[in-house]
Amino acid sequence: MSSEFGNVLRIGVFGQSHGKAIGVTVHGLPAGEAVDLEDLQRFMDRRAPGRNAQSTARKEADHPVFLSGLADGVTCGSPLCAMIENSDHHSSDYAELADKPRPAHADYTAWVKWKGQADMRGGGHFSGRLTAPLCIAGGIAKQILARRGIHVGAHILAIGSVSEERFPFHPMPELFTAVADKDFPVLDDAAGEHMKAIIAEARSRGDSIGGCVECAVTGLPAGLGGPMFDGVENRLAAALFGIPAVKGVDFGAGFDVVQRYGSENNDPFVLEDGNIVTATNHAGGILGGITNGMPVTMRVAFKPTPSISLPQQTVSLSRMEPAELVIRGRHDPCVTHRAVPVVEAVAAIVALDLLLEEKQL
Amino acid sequence: MSSEFGNVLRIGVFGQSHGKAIGVTVHGLPAGEAVDLEDLQRFMDRRAPGRNAQSTARKEADHPVFLSGLADGVTCGSPLCAMIENSDHHSSDYAELADKPRPAHADYTAWVKWKGQADMRGGGHFSGRLTAPLCIAGGIAKQILARRGIHVGAHILAIGSVSEERFPFHPMPELFTAVADKDFPVLDDAAGEHMKAIIAEARSRGDSIGGCVECAVTGLPAGLGGPMFDGVENRLAAALFGIPAVKGVDFGAGFDVVQRYGSENNDPFVLEDGNIVTATNHAGGILGGITNGMPVTMRVAFKPTPSISLPQQTVSLSRMEPAELVIRGRHDPCVTHRAVPVVEAVAAIVALDLLLEEKQL
Amino acid sequence: MSSEFGNVLRIGVFGQSHGKAIGVTVHGLPAGEAVDLEDLQRFMDRRAPGRNAQSTARKEADHPVFLSGLADGVTCGSPLCAMIENSDHHSSDYAELADKPRPAHADYTAWVKWKGQADMRGGGHFSGRLTAPLCIAGGIAKQILARRGIHVGAHILAIGSVSEERFPFHPMPELFTAVADKDFPVLDDAAGEHMKAIIAEARSRGDSIGGCVECAVTGLPAGLGGPMFDGVENRLAAALFGIPAVKGVDFGAGFDVVQRYGSENNDPFVLEDGNIVTATNHAGGILGGITNGMPVTMRVAFKPTPSISLPQQTVSLSRMEPAELVIRGRHDPCVTHRAVPVVEAVAAIVALDLLLEEKQL
Amino acid sequence: MSSEFGNVLRIGVFGQSHGKAIGVTVHGLPAGEAVDLEDLQRFMDRRAPGRNAQSTARKEADHPVFLSGLADGVTCGSPLCAMIENSDHHSSDYAELADKPRPAHADYTAWVKWKGQADMRGGGHFSGRLTAPLCIAGGIAKQILARRGIHVGAHILAIGSVSEERFPFHPMPELFTAVADKDFPVLDDAAGEHMKAIIAEARSRGDSIGGCVECAVTGLPAGLGGPMFDGVENRLAAALFGIPAVKGVDFGAGFDVVQRYGSENNDPFVLEDGNIVTATNHAGGILGGITNGMPVTMRVAFKPTPSISLPQQTVSLSRMEPAELVIRGRHDPCVTHRAVPVVEAVAAIVALDLLLEEKQL
Repeated sequence: MSSEFGNVLRIGVFGQSHGKAIGVTVHGLPAGEAVDLEDLQRFMDRRAPGRNAQSTARKEADHPVFLSGLADGVTCGSPLCAMIENSDHHSSDYAELADKPRPAHADYTAWVKWKGQADMRGGGHFSGRLTAPLCIAGGIAKQILARRGIHVGAHILAIGSVSEERFPFHPMPELFTAVADKDFPVLDDAAGEHMKAIIAEARSRGDSIGGCVECAVTGLPAGLGGPMFDGVENRLAAALFGIPAVKGVDFGAGFDVVQRYGSENNDPFVLEDGNIVTATNHAGGILGGITNGMPVTMRVAFKPTPSISLPQQTVSLSRMEPAELVIRGRHDPCVTHRAVPVVEAVAAIVALDLLLEEKQL
Repeated sequence: MSSEFGNVLRIGVFGQSHGKAIGVTVHGLPAGEAVDLEDLQRFMDRRAPGRNAQSTARKEADHPVFLSGLADGVTCGSPLCAMIENSDHHSSDYAELADKPRPAHADYTAWVKWKGQADMRGGGHFSGRLTAPLCIAGGIAKQILARRGIHVGAHILAIGSVSEERFPFHPMPELFTAVADKDFPVLDDAAGEHMKAIIAEARSRGDSIGGCVECAVTGLPAGLGGPMFDGVENRLAAALFGIPAVKGVDFGAGFDVVQRYGSENNDPFVLEDGNIVTATNHAGGILGGITNGMPVTMRVAFKPTPSISLPQQTVSLSRMEPAELVIRGRHDPCVTHRAVPVVEAVAAIVALDLLLEEKQL
Repeated sequence: MSSEFGNVLRIGVFGQSHGKAIGVTVHGLPAGEAVDLEDLQRFMDRRAPGRNAQSTARKEADHPVFLSGLADGVTCGSPLCAMIENSDHHSSDYAELADKPRPAHADYTAWVKWKGQADMRGGGHFSGRLTAPLCIAGGIAKQILARRGIHVGAHILAIGSVSEERFPFHPMPELFTAVADKDFPVLDDAAGEHMKAIIAEARSRGDSIGGCVECAVTGLPAGLGGPMFDGVENRLAAALFGIPAVKGVDFGAGFDVVQRYGSENNDPFVLEDGNIVTATNHAGGILGGITNGMPVTMRVAFKPTPSISLPQQTVSLSRMEPAELVIRGRHDPCVTHRAVPVVEAVAAIVALDLLLEEKQL
Repeated sequence: MSSEFGNVLRIGVFGQSHGKAIGVTVHGLPAGEAVDLEDLQRFMDRRAPGRNAQSTARKEADHPVFLSGLADGVTCGSPLCAMIENSDHHSSDYAELADKPRPAHADYTAWVKWKGQADMRGGGHFSGRLTAPLCIAGGIAKQILARRGIHVGAHILAIGSVSEERFPFHPMPELFTAVADKDFPVLDDAAGEHMKAIIAEARSRGDSIGGCVECAVTGLPAGLGGPMFDGVENRLAAALFGIPAVKGVDFGAGFDVVQRYGSENNDPFVLEDGNIVTATNHAGGILGGITNGMPVTMRVAFKPTPSISLPQQTVSLSRMEPAELVIRGRHDPCVTHRAVPVVEAVAAIVALDLLLEEKQL
């Protein structure tokens, strides 16, 4: 029941949305790795709200303060802890919610689990805000990986009924950078405009909309991971489902394999510059839980933001009777585009953990 | 890199396909639970090959031998170990494969990882045969859960382009039993006939076909699991991706959430007989990583069997040159229907682990 | 390689001695537990330096700042993080040490492990100062336990060649409190005076001296823990060896069992007020790794402070030649008396973890 | 609560004393390591009973049967499982014991923990017999280590009031072999004769006697392990306390540090053949939880065998009234000498785990 994951690299997230601070601990980081704080801040800013018209207008300054683990900006082998101090919140907005659990939020399940003792102001420990500390750890992991020629990129694959193409067969770091630099991280800006229109329409009706993120990790050597329960897919999936609102994860061709024949889906082995590669990558770079040297690719499905302005049916916990709920305040009509760097962060952390486990660093 | 999973209930699978025996260890089982060996054997038989025209004709007698953990047929608190002895294999069939990795199998990645030392005869530790010991543990878990009114059922949701309806809103144990009793476990036999036709067609061409399994766990109390990385979805996904050939896992509406509006997807809370339930179950019984008391539902995508009779392109590892490969022997043209009890087994193990963790047994 | 321990209750310590802050994360705390901050501060003060003539005169204000996990002073189910901000340090004192590893310190082993990248100013992550955050977690655990009638106490059993009696058969909470209230926590003040004299003598010569702490946990129910590798002794020992300077741990009669006959050492079972107890407690409350309901007792051996003022022989890492080292600054001539609350903290954390695991709270 | 330990190398022990088989699973073994089965059997025989006059006359043939993990006698990367089949037992001997818990055994605590459901015939999962599978894993670990110049040896340091010298400063593999070849593994046979006399005397009175084992691991590189809770001492201690009857563990000077001054106890760093070593080894090869390249040394205290022939006081569980107990059958009057290879086994497993973690193999 802990908010931790990882084998050699152990990530722990702490904090409540309206508490004093949120943060992350990272045990097992290699020593001697410089952390580029400006680069990290740019990465953090990619998930920050208020970045474009598709996001909530709330202001949050997500500046990490490093309590430990760095000396002169370089990792020193001891556990890293970084926090983001919360600004003051008007928790009064959430008073009504304590009695009326919001549909599709964790209010009800947290109330059952902790017998009414959970601090659920602003979503508490379940808030999407907790992905900010995750991005601190992930941003650092990305820097460490990039130095070894391992790159992590992601884009919005779909919003509602509008989707774009998947990453090309072997995406280049430049592509990752180009997408990351966009306010709305898509490969194809035309598709992106359609997606924005869908989000705007949902917002205008007080509604929200789901979406899908694709992520790729390139440059990983073959041989990472293992069979059965501690392989690459197991670990990535376990970590990715830790991002709030994720309801589905697949790898390579993923759910498309259901409709495929083996003769289509099997990736032939071929030689390229004396190396064994596959001619296609339906496996998403993973065979038997072990990397095969091809890009590791995954898709992550995000549900529509549970917080909508439309009236919803719920129950009063104190009176155990039906109740109507109207959630006030501004909320993201879609979390998918802000989730893009979060998916990258999680993928980078797991990739670094896999490498550290094999001491391939 | 271990073939283990679970928190309080620790499952470890061992064995190679052509080794002396395959088996499972289970640490953390509660004491005093009778194991109905006949019921367990019936469950094991559901995944056995040769059960119908859709499976391989190979004969394997999967009779578990209990080495420890039971006394007079009742769990005694100490670790359980059960094995299935392998009959003699003609490993000569696999001699060619040692040099020519089969596409979409783990031959190549295992060769890289263990530097040519892996015992890959018959697929080695990566073989689908390793799901038999998983079913021993899962079958026992199912019995323990059933005594508490917690039931686990699954069915073939799709084969190739043919799919059937999902489970009804709140599936009854009788439905689970009725499906489990079928040679081809579907809800709708008409759809099942279409699926069988697709499998037969693939087989006739020396090809294979993918599929999807849906699973539901009913009767779980609200409050199991937790936020972020150790919740119900994280743990189920991590375990389900341990089943060979799984490439995607989702929960509740799963990947369908991508196209949904919040107003559609949010499950309203309502009162039913004085209990708080949800009017729909797009969340698949999980909010914030914690059970909400509704059925926990998931889908699992299985890729087409990598072993096909058609000629395939690969590489000779010894000569590092292109090679053509024809896999001989009989192989399942589809693993999905045999995977149905395996998915149930994994879901049952995770459900029991969640309950034990909360001492809700 | 992480600085974490615990099963259900997960404790992680972070920080370097001269970094921005040191602190602790606690995952798995039960919700609804009030934390008495004044009581906690009094507990923290017991390990603070400068408390008596036997300690260093350095001033450190160990005031925990809670970043998460509490709401209105009550645990809320989400991970707790608390930090202690470090005041500015003259790290220049430690410049010489970077090249000349101090005997019996971790300077050399950290240099090897992290290839010269460790932040070892003030001892870095190996500093005894890191026991302060451990006391935050332990102090909270003690409060939670005390509410259930479970009490943890410790005393100085020996300093150098002077030792006092062990705890009585079944120590009362009042005795624990009385010892804890002393500047120099012994049962017998006369023995304590002898111990102080030994410390004073060592200090006067620029030397240091070892010692031993005895700890007892009373009120634990029978049935906690388990056989073999995850039992009460395994977990207490693994955690206690995490305290810097500990070189030995034993339980009950401990190393004295070497000289005992079975007829002396076996604790007879007897009835007392209808309960099964033992007439003696050489087992230290643990049989087969499981509590038997008697006080859990342990001894912990602390080596003499490695930092002494006397000249010592070492090696210059940069020149790979013999070097003499004189450690400047004030240092505790003995850590044992300050370690008393730290041992209590660790014992309390493990005891709470064992209880949570069995949901006996 | 599982009977497992290890980080990268995961050891799990299963079996009840009178069950069908006892055994061990080993996840994480490196591939490509030949296992010399004759050498392994010789190692196993060192703990077997009936080897000399000091042991019980019971006959047990401890022949490991390998179910998985080996191919042609070489480790193949997949989990290893080995079992030892139990011969038929007259469990009737233990009928009375089910109602009258034996003092200093786990009968009572197991009865509480598993509510009377434990299979305690012959000691069940708590039996010393469970150290046989531990020796399978440890014997394999020893062979893997020896190939890298890492050697593990142990001897009887004390029986009752008779003790011998500790290992020399840097024990040679030849010394380990010479001791291991003895029926009664001591350095000094004269001291050994005294020890045997003490055991004989205890046996003649129907009593038993405690003892102490010293173990050393030579050849480990500096830099293994880590600070605080996952270091070398933590892991060795956690594992060693898993051996039945162990009540104390210390490292290097261990409990002797209590009486030492820093100037005596600190090990000076010196140069030897261009390498940094220490002039003494009071640290037992471990500083700050990390190996320093010197021999890792430890002492393990074993309590006198709880099974004695003398009448003992206990309680009838069914009638909850005082009862007298006389344990029939033949029992070791001392377990210490048979425990010598078991301590080696555990130390070897932990050492191999530490090396694998650092990929220093």
